[in-house]
Amino acid sequence: MDKLEMRHTLLAAKARKKMSWDDIASAVGMSPVWVASACYGMNSASPDIAKKICTTLDVDGDIAEALVAFPTKVWDEAIPQDPFIYRLYEVVGVYGETLKDVVQEQFGDGIMSAIDFTMEVDKVEDPKGDRVLLTLNGKFLPYKSW
Amino acid sequence: MDKLEMRHTLLAAKARKKMSWDDIASAVGMSPVWVASACYGMNSASPDIAKKICTTLDVDGDIAEALVAFPTKVWDEAIPQDPFIYRLYEVVGVYGETLKDVVQEQFGDGIMSAIDFTMEVDKVEDPKGDRVLLTLNGKFLPYKSW
Amino acid sequence: MDKLEMRHTLLAAKARKKMSWDDIASAVGMSPVWVASACYGMNSASPDIAKKICTTLDVDGDIAEALVAFPTKVWDEAIPQDPFIYRLYEVVGVYGETLKDVVQEQFGDGIMSAIDFTMEVDKVEDPKGDRVLLTLNGKFLPYKSW
Amino acid sequence: MDKLEMRHTLLAAKARKKMSWDDIASAVGMSPVWVASACYGMNSASPDIAKKICTTLDVDGDIAEALVAFPTKVWDEAIPQDPFIYRLYEVVGVYGETLKDVVQEQFGDGIMSAIDFTMEVDKVEDPKGDRVLLTLNGKFLPYKSW
Amino acid sequence: MDKLEMRHTLLAAKARKKMSWDDIASAVGMSPVWVASACYGMNSASPDIAKKICTTLDVDGDIAEALVAFPTKVWDEAIPQDPFIYRLYEVVGVYGETLKDVVQEQFGDGIMSAIDFTMEVDKVEDPKGDRVLLTLNGKFLPYKSW
Amino acid sequence: MDKLEMRHTLLAAKARKKMSWDDIASAVGMSPVWVASACYGMNSASPDIAKKICTTLDVDGDIAEALVAFPTKVWDEAIPQDPFIYRLYEVVGVYGETLKDVVQEQFGDGIMSAIDFTMEVDKVEDPKGDRVLLTLNGKFLPYKSW
Amino acid sequence: MDKLEMRHTLLAAKARKKMSWDDIASAVGMSPVWVASACYGMNSASPDIAKKICTTLDVDGDIAEALVAFPTKVWDEAIPQDPFIYRLYEVVGVYGETLKDVVQEQFGDGIMSAIDFTMEVDKVEDPKGDRVLLTLNGKFLPYKSW
Amino acid sequence: MDKLEMRHTLLAAKARKKMSWDDIASAVGMSPVWVASACYGMNSASPDIAKKICTTLDVDGDIAEALVAFPTKVWDEAIPQDPFIYRLYEVVGVYGETLKDVVQEQFGDGIMSAIDFTMEVDKVEDPKGDRVLLTLNGKFLPYKSW
Amino acid sequence: MDKLEMRHTLLAAKARKKMSWDDIASAVGMSPVWVASACYGMNSASPDIAKKICTTLDVDGDIAEALVAFPTKVWDEAIPQDPFIYRLYEVVGVYGETLKDVVQEQFGDGIMSAIDFTMEVDKVEDPKGDRVLLTLNGKFLPYKSW
Amino acid sequence: MDKLEMRHTLLAAKARKKMSWDDIASAVGMSPVWVASACYGMNSASPDIAKKICTTLDVDGDIAEALVAFPTKVWDEAIPQDPFIYRLYEVVGVYGETLKDVVQEQFGDGIMSAIDFTMEVDKVEDPKGDRVLLTLNGKFLPYKSW
Repeated sequence: MDKLEMRHTLLAAKARKKMSWDDIASAVGMSPVWVASACYGMNSASPDIAKKICTTLDVDGDIAEALVAFPTKVWDEAIPQDPFIYRLYEVVGVYGETLKDVVQEQFGDGIMSAIDFTMEVDKVEDPKGDRVLLTLNGKFLPYKSW
Repeated sequence: MDKLEMRHTLLAAKARKKMSWDDIASAVGMSPVWVASACYGMNSASPDIAKKICTTLDVDGDIAEALVAFPTKVWDEAIPQDPFIYRLYEVVGVYGETLKDVVQEQFGDGIMSAIDFTMEVDKVEDPKGDRVLLTLNGKFLPYKSW
Repeated sequence: MDKLEMRHTLLAAKARKKMSWDDIASAVGMSPVWVASACYGMNSASPDIAKKICTTLDVDGDIAEALVAFPTKVWDEAIPQDPFIYRLYEVVGVYGETLKDVVQEQFGDGIMSAIDFTMEVDKVEDPKGDRVLLTLNGKFLPYKSW
Repeated sequence: MDKLEMRHTLLAAKARKKMSWDDIASAVGMSPVWVASACYGMNSASPDIAKKICTTLDVDGDIAEALVAFPTKVWDEAIPQDPFIYRLYEVVGVYGETLKDVVQEQFGDGIMSAIDFTMEVDKVEDPKGDRVLLTLNGKFLPYKSW
Repeated sequence: MDKLEMRHTLLAAKARKKMSWDDIASAVGMSPVWVASACYGMNSASPDIAKKICTTLDVDGDIAEALVAFPTKVWDEAIPQDPFIYRLYEVVGVYGETLKDVVQEQFGDGIMSAIDFTMEVDKVEDPKGDRVLLTLNGKFLPYKSW
Repeated sequence: MDKLEMRHTLLAAKARKKMSWDDIASAVGMSPVWVASACYGMNSASPDIAKKICTTLDVDGDIAEALVAFPTKVWDEAIPQDPFIYRLYEVVGVYGETLKDVVQEQFGDGIMSAIDFTMEVDKVEDPKGDRVLLTLNGKFLPYKSW
Repeated sequence: MDKLEMRHTLLAAKARKKMSWDDIASAVGMSPVWVASACYGMNSASPDIAKKICTTLDVDGDIAEALVAFPTKVWDEAIPQDPFIYRLYEVVGVYGETLKDVVQEQFGDGIMSAIDFTMEVDKVEDPKGDRVLLTLNGKFLPYKSW
Repeated sequence: MDKLEMRHTLLAAKARKKMSWDDIASAVGMSPVWVASACYGMNSASPDIAKKICTTLDVDGDIAEALVAFPTKVWDEAIPQDPFIYRLYEVVGVYGETLKDVVQEQFGDGIMSAIDFTMEVDKVEDPKGDRVLLTLNGKFLPYKSW
Repeated sequence: MDKLEMRHTLLAAKARKKMSWDDIASAVGMSPVWVASACYGMNSASPDIAKKICTTLDVDGDIAEALVAFPTKVWDEAIPQDPFIYRLYEVVGVYGETLKDVVQEQFGDGIMSAIDFTMEVDKVEDPKGDRVLLTLNGKFLPYKSW
Repeated sequence: MDKLEMRHTLLAAKARKKMSWDDIASAVGMSPVWVASACYGMNSASPDIAKKICTTLDVDGDIAEALVAFPTKVWDEAIPQDPFIYRLYEVVGVYGETLKDVVQEQFGDGIMSAIDFTMEVDKVEDPKGDRVLLTLNGKFLPYKSW
């Protein structure tokens, strides 16, 4: 079973169970963004967590194996089109150079890891319109000289 | 004076004054990421803030006018190459679809605004290696039906 | 059922019923452009409207569910080829910079939302050749400084 | 004098005169969007109008000649990056196919001309946030068969 | 039935009938280039002509409906590869700017329509090698000022 | 002197002399499209014709040398943006496959040469709007088998 | 039967018959490169040669018809990836401008035809490593002036 | 002195001396294609040959140094536009896969080197039109297994 | 059987046998990277090695034939997206020019072959985090002059 | 002084001093590849090393400051053209997927860092042609789950 088939099965099971990502995340003891990305096939799960996801969503063990497999991470469009995802791309375009300068001024020459990395979504209620809070947390990796 | 010349002048003045973005931000009463982006030419400042930036960095009033001008926001590469900026692009590629699902499940069909939007950088000290914390805060905009 | 299958079913039903978008729009109490975009899978409908669309077109309830689902909005060609759509793209290319200046002069630094947004099509009869009137109506969003 | 130099001269004169596009448009008896696009070098003016623009902005007659010249219309990016212009591009991507169907249902097989074409910008005040109204008005051109 | 299936059916029928485009064009009273483009799915036919094409090629009435449908015109490669089509693309690249100047000098600022447009192919016999004569005939559309 | 400088000089001289391409073409005994393309730097002239062009436009002999040089033919955009040139590109996209079939049916497997090639522009007056007539005339080259 | 199916059939038959392109070429009295390109679907064969190819490879007459059909020549990648084909592309990149100059110095302004064109492959044995000899033979086509 | 300046100097000297590539090649004892590519900056010369080229063309010793420098080989367009160079690209596109098969059948799995490589241009006179003969000669390199 | 089917069969057999690439490589007496690349379809094996791979993985002889076939080497994305592969691409981008200079300074003008080439992967244990050691070993090929 | 000017100055000084990268690397106590990349502007040096590089090459202190500045790492071509660099790109294309599998089998799901990374060049003398040995050494970074 490949990641694509796994993903269809898991999303269908999630719909059938009427569970949110928060529900599943609580059930397996992980974070909603990570659980969703694993079910979308963009991260691998440990055998233990994979089993918990399958139990929670009532799907059989083949799926657990597919969740454990190491994914090849690819996306469809170099420049995303869906407005939700494009806005994130736009933020990288507009603020990328600024962030590089502000972060490197504090941390030195290096990058924020996208591998040793976690991310959370929060909702901030606001009478003028609720706000989405995305928190990206990545290890700083200094460039090596040798 | 265009934004490019303004930017060179401001970055040179910043280096001469040996001030960090934090220092300038405190002096003008705004956030470091926003101040840096205005000095890079990717945001416009109000006349009042523009004047404060110029005073802080000891540059003359033409610069203030350039800071107030409404920028055309463009970036050089559709797919960024500098490793710092590429990692952010990679996060959008790997997690974009996941984030869309997690956010829309909580907020309904819509997007996180990149216009009614703020962003902060923080440093989390960690014995295994300090971590960069990026916080994106955007108003949720529901799609309209009509 | 995904949006693509939904779309084929709805367009076939529309042909079978010999209804125009105007007819369907009147029947469900919404605007023709929005109704068409929802049936094409580029907007989500509320459960209530989805049900009305299905009743109007005599299709079953699975379709209603697909109309309610939040779409991922993508299009086939970065630069459109069909002459009808290309002309719109050309207008953006030729007048984009001009519009930005004219609008921002009146409204300040910001954008016209494509999310809090509606659009209408009208026909203006003219002996020298009828004219198409497209009206785009989007909320102005000022850039935030912080 | 080429269109680029003309444009810089006209925009500088406009700033010096502290006139808005509305002011200039009233003075020359044309529409603001068209006047702005001619000054940006994306449309040619008749000798008569060109002279009026020059008189209004107090610039000399070489500029009039440049305004009269037939432009080669090009734009910098196949996919625009500035958020203002991108939102228009996004509208074409999201609604292009829908518009083609809605318009052709009413008018027959053909296109909306981008040449025999006018456009207006209006401001609709709204307590929840002012709205931008763009009106595109193009002659319908039926495909010929032969 | 979509345009692709229609096209396969019509080309197969044409081969079976051993008719040339000239033969079919004469039978239906239209021009060979237009008839071929309608059968390839790049133009729509009136119901009357569609019926004649179907009668001429002995195919059933579903095909007529597909011929009448308004096509979405797309092509596979932004830069064509087949040597026949590439040579036409090359002519546009090499002579495009020249033609713009020569035509606009005679007609004023505007374009040659590709919609109100016809095209013919002729063969000029020549002892040094026969020559292909392509005649493009498009309405001149002056840019509007407003 | 390179082709670009030559072109600027020749277009300036043409404006100064207030001659049309037709005027120059008559004076040198060649066709307007070819003369324009040589002056734009997209074709080389024989020394004899080059001299006549220089005499006609009152420019000195360096220009003649540049007219005689063999050009490297390049154009700026793989997909043209100016509406005049784009319409020609669109014709190639919409009708390319059709033309290949219609021509090869008459001539056999091969191409229309873009090298052994001439082109003319004519104006057809028409009360409903004048029409542009482009005539492309290229030698048919059959594919060789060996 | 289309060219793709033809190609699979012919390559399978060739493998079954354990014949090399040289063997087939000798049997049909043509050159190996041309025979291979016809079987790959990149050239059309005369009915006579097509029949000989079919007889040699013991395949039935439908294949002959497909060999006679005029191909649309397309290739998968604008920049080839397979190392064998990339090296040829690299030669065009590195030496293209040089070849243009060397050939045009000898022949005048024009091109080497890729249509009235043949090509051969030879093996030159060499103790330091055998060498591949590719010979391209194309008619010189002078640019026409008119 | 960089390769670009070197190239301009050498081509100007060649024009001044009215020497062909054949003349220069004979004078320095190398092949015309190689000499031209070295002067264009796409190959490096040994100090000895560099000096001979400079002597032959009467240019000073800085040029010799630039001829000896190891070039970075780049070209302007991924898909060439000049018709002369495009025809070579087209040959690679149309025949690349065929050549790979024909050559590998004779030589085994591997490539024709573009580094251990030479190339010649010859003219074959022909009453029906002279022909260009390009001979590419590259060492066959078998893929290694390990 | 084509390379894609072969690859699926071999990877499935490897999973069933629970063998690592190291295990298979030892069994067939070749290196793990090469064995993996042959099973992925990016290198051809000799008949002898192909048979050993099939015996080791208990698959039948058709697979051996597919392993022996000469592959056409293509990859999906010009710019890789999976983070593992992108990091290698980034190394080529960041260090490519540097490596060219450092290697050519030692070896002269030429390249490192990617054909007469081997590669190994090693693991270096390190308390601060294990390290990956990639060793690329390619024959130096000097450019020929002729 | 920006990185580009710094690079020109350093390469000129290196040529003047007739030092190899090995010589400079020994003098400053770092590795040749790293020293070259810092001088090319693709890595930043510590103030101490920067001073040593300047002393070794006899250039003044402004250069040291430029060496210390944090670079924005960009490269000219998404797909490199110079044959030396292209071969490295080809290795990533041909072996990227293979390496991912071989490395992840040994190390788990993760990547080889291109930041905590070093690289060496060695020469292996060989009577059949010397070989280039590139050694890449990067920390393995496991993907985090959270």
